[in-house]
Amino acid sequence: MIGKPPRFLQAIGVLESCFKEKFATPRQSGLVPAAQARLRLRPQYIPRESLRGLSGFSHVWILSYLHLNANKSFCATVHPPRLQGKAVGVFATRSPHRPSPIGLSLARLEKVEGETLYLSGLDLADGTPVIDVKPYLPDSDAIPGAKTGWPRLASRRRLAVTISAPAKAQLRGLERDGRPALGKLIRQALAHDPRNPRDRSQLDPAKLHEAKFLDCVVRFRIQGRRALIEDASQAAQAAKPRRVPVPPGLW
Amino acid sequence: MIGKPPRFLQAIGVLESCFKEKFATPRQSGLVPAAQARLRLRPQYIPRESLRGLSGFSHVWILSYLHLNANKSFCATVHPPRLQGKAVGVFATRSPHRPSPIGLSLARLEKVEGETLYLSGLDLADGTPVIDVKPYLPDSDAIPGAKTGWPRLASRRRLAVTISAPAKAQLRGLERDGRPALGKLIRQALAHDPRNPRDRSQLDPAKLHEAKFLDCVVRFRIQGRRALIEDASQAAQAAKPRRVPVPPGLW
Repeated sequence: MIGKPPRFLQAIGVLESCFKEKFATPRQSGLVPAAQARLRLRPQYIPRESLRGLSGFSHVWILSYLHLNANKSFCATVHPPRLQGKAVGVFATRSPHRPSPIGLSLARLEKVEGETLYLSGLDLADGTPVIDVKPYLPDSDAIPGAKTGWPRLASRRRLAVTISAPAKAQLRGLERDGRPALGKLIRQALAHDPRNPRDRSQLDPAKLHEAKFLDCVVRFRIQGRRALIEDASQAAQAAKPRRVPVPPGLW
Repeated sequence: MIGKPPRFLQAIGVLESCFKEKFATPRQSGLVPAAQARLRLRPQYIPRESLRGLSGFSHVWILSYLHLNANKSFCATVHPPRLQGKAVGVFATRSPHRPSPIGLSLARLEKVEGETLYLSGLDLADGTPVIDVKPYLPDSDAIPGAKTGWPRLASRRRLAVTISAPAKAQLRGLERDGRPALGKLIRQALAHDPRNPRDRSQLDPAKLHEAKFLDCVVRFRIQGRRALIEDASQAAQAAKPRRVPVPPGLW
């Protein structure tokens, strides 16, 4: 038994993710297989013994507290980016803007080392509090032929990602310098069009977008169904370590 | 926008389930397809508009607050019934006894009527507060070939369920009287051996077990790999309506 009794929900750790902000973080798990993340259990509360036997599983569910959801109230309907303006009920979507802002993401479990999980394919931003890890059980969890309603009708057309010659050289340098899969990560992430179709300013083809991956900043324009990366460089200064937000009821 | 801002987590409704107590409630979703449940959204907080488009999905995730977990603290390791006494880390299991007692269950969505969801295949007891409903997205959620660690090595041998002649007559009467699938439900539920292998008193072959399904009580013995139903009758009195437990942080 662990000393302190849990109050209600417990942050078992805070995720370190290659996605440093909400913009360009994927909208579903599995869309960006090159996404890497690390979860270290808070050792003062959660002993590493609680991971015994987990490394035999290839995939895990990550339940998280969606702390970047700053809405003070919730809307009954949301506008999924894929639906180009049409609204559906919040419970018919995986939107983070929901009455209980708990995220459900499926990650590939790359390895377990001590009290640290190495994960890939997640759709969560750096600093997200994780409240639970559960093994993926295909006997209960996999229903390949399940019917999916509105997503069947919605297009998920990917963008073609091209990289300018100078940006290619920059990326090669950054990759040589200890970020081996950076180019792949950026290509996969931008292919899913990070723009919010309801934000007109983002739809301007002249707009130079900026997104952060690992410790790098990438600048790109989106014209038609094509994203052109113009610049990739190390961020001017390292991101400040984030304070873990502890909402009431979570500790 | 809805009037009152959510505090942190919100019970969007309380589940009405055919399983009236923890004993004989299945240990995973999908094990008992005949299990029926109903979730009515709390209309004062959650408008029915939030379900728009949900009926196009065949399956939904139900995130619940596991309120029957009475533990005051948590153990880093648990003993899954299938492992016959061996322990594994809590995060390598779907045990309800975890730092954040949130349940993740997959249900078949039979239909949506107004603000009520009709669900089947759940592993949740009557009175469980539901905090979220999410559509099942096979593109992200189904990984049929995922590797599963310890469950591969554990047997999930089912019990053969037999019904005594008098109990058969009782069941026929109860089914005619408005519970058409009661026999199927009981057979499916008991086949998964509801006993806790660490509770010696439950392993006594002479013990007469009692389990509640819908408004009925079933009495049975388990001998070897065989469950014998000896009696099935309407409960002497209807179960009292349960008070919804509202832990700190949930409202």
